[in-house]
Amino acid sequence: MESNPLEEHSQGLLPWFIAATQILGLAAVIITGVWMGYYQGGFGWDGSSLEFNVHPLCMVIGMVFLYGDSILVYRVFKNESKTTVKILHAAIHLIGLVATIVGLISVFGYHSAQNIPNMYSLHSWCGIICIILFCVQWVVGLIFFLFPGMSYSLRACYRPLHVYFGLGIFILAIGTSLLGITEKLLFSISDTYSKFVAEGVLANVLGLVLVSFGSTVVYIVTRSEWKRVSSPEEEALSMHFKTLTERDSPDSPQGS
Amino acid sequence: MESNPLEEHSQGLLPWFIAATQILGLAAVIITGVWMGYYQGGFGWDGSSLEFNVHPLCMVIGMVFLYGDSILVYRVFKNESKTTVKILHAAIHLIGLVATIVGLISVFGYHSAQNIPNMYSLHSWCGIICIILFCVQWVVGLIFFLFPGMSYSLRACYRPLHVYFGLGIFILAIGTSLLGITEKLLFSISDTYSKFVAEGVLANVLGLVLVSFGSTVVYIVTRSEWKRVSSPEEEALSMHFKTLTERDSPDSPQGS
Repeated sequence: MESNPLEEHSQGLLPWFIAATQILGLAAVIITGVWMGYYQGGFGWDGSSLEFNVHPLCMVIGMVFLYGDSILVYRVFKNESKTTVKILHAAIHLIGLVATIVGLISVFGYHSAQNIPNMYSLHSWCGIICIILFCVQWVVGLIFFLFPGMSYSLRACYRPLHVYFGLGIFILAIGTSLLGITEKLLFSISDTYSKFVAEGVLANVLGLVLVSFGSTVVYIVTRSEWKRVSSPEEEALSMHFKTLTERDSPDSPQGS
Repeated sequence: MESNPLEEHSQGLLPWFIAATQILGLAAVIITGVWMGYYQGGFGWDGSSLEFNVHPLCMVIGMVFLYGDSILVYRVFKNESKTTVKILHAAIHLIGLVATIVGLISVFGYHSAQNIPNMYSLHSWCGIICIILFCVQWVVGLIFFLFPGMSYSLRACYRPLHVYFGLGIFILAIGTSLLGITEKLLFSISDTYSKFVAEGVLANVLGLVLVSFGSTVVYIVTRSEWKRVSSPEEEALSMHFKTLTERDSPDSPQGS
């Protein structure tokens, strides 16, 4: 590994970018909480709109904030063993999935209690695709990267797809959130939204904060200087594999 | 360059993926045309909703289809000279920008004629950010990559940012389109959308086609085996630069 002042300067920037993601991610969760808790009357589990209000909060926590943080563990814990980081990655995603399922139950429960049809909107179509892909990705990722019997060659083949779909589902989750914001505003404040009322502006700002969070996370994980450096042990395995296949190493820093 | 059966198989897949993008992109343009032309009453330039109908069609053509195709020229014309491809890239973006400006004039013209407030929705906020970033990116790209006096080191520093923002703005444009679809449906068929009427289903399908187009374009340009291979002349310049800076070459296939 070469080391020069530019490289060191670049590495020094990483913690600031990580901090920015945490500020943006927490801001998104807090703004959603304020929107639902204050402007939309609070939270409940009684089939009323208060039960619906649980949905956006759980989705922003599970499918956006925790999802983003789970991706970032490969950059935050660059010097931990790869297995530890993989387990942390899978565990954070699992906690996010629990929040997502609660959010899903709350919206279906509210629709059922109020006789509102399900699954007709673009938001619901994108959302359900997102959650199905997320579950498939989690299970396939577990089998390929944490199941001890899986060969390095299979891991190496699958890794770029895992990274592509991982970021793709994350971006789709953010896009789906923006659709949810627009739907909720047009359902609840359609008369005043165009008058720049505080609730509408706050929800729009939430949309921009979600986009900023997503863009920063994707920037961090795709910037080549910040990719994970393999340990000497991983490097040895990777070189062995490279010799066998004359292709990319299975444990390169791409982030499996 | 190594060449093995796996590599050749992978290269053989590229034209199929390119074909898929063109089918998806044209499908998006046609579905938008059918939605606005048939279900929403056609096109016009008289301040009525027919003038508004020009907006989605121009945006899907300019900010999605042509934008995607402009990115793809680096993979479609892998063997042309880099300067030719850069000029094509800038030219397609410029045609897209013209379509985008027509789309922008049509929506502001419609709002003005109907006394509808501007710029209050999340769709409009994301859209205007998208177009401003697009213009800045186009001008800065022109200065860095087509202005003859620019040094290789500056080009090399800027290239990863150009690629990151280029794909980021493209994804934001697709997200903004989805917001526009949801807005238009809730403004025009809010009473029947939940009954799965043909117009609502068609517009939802348009949303999924746009997402599929975007995902396929991003997959093609980020797949490492499909990146542009430098010509021997470019390679020589790049090696010279690498020696000077001990960093990435300025004309690596990343796609400046």
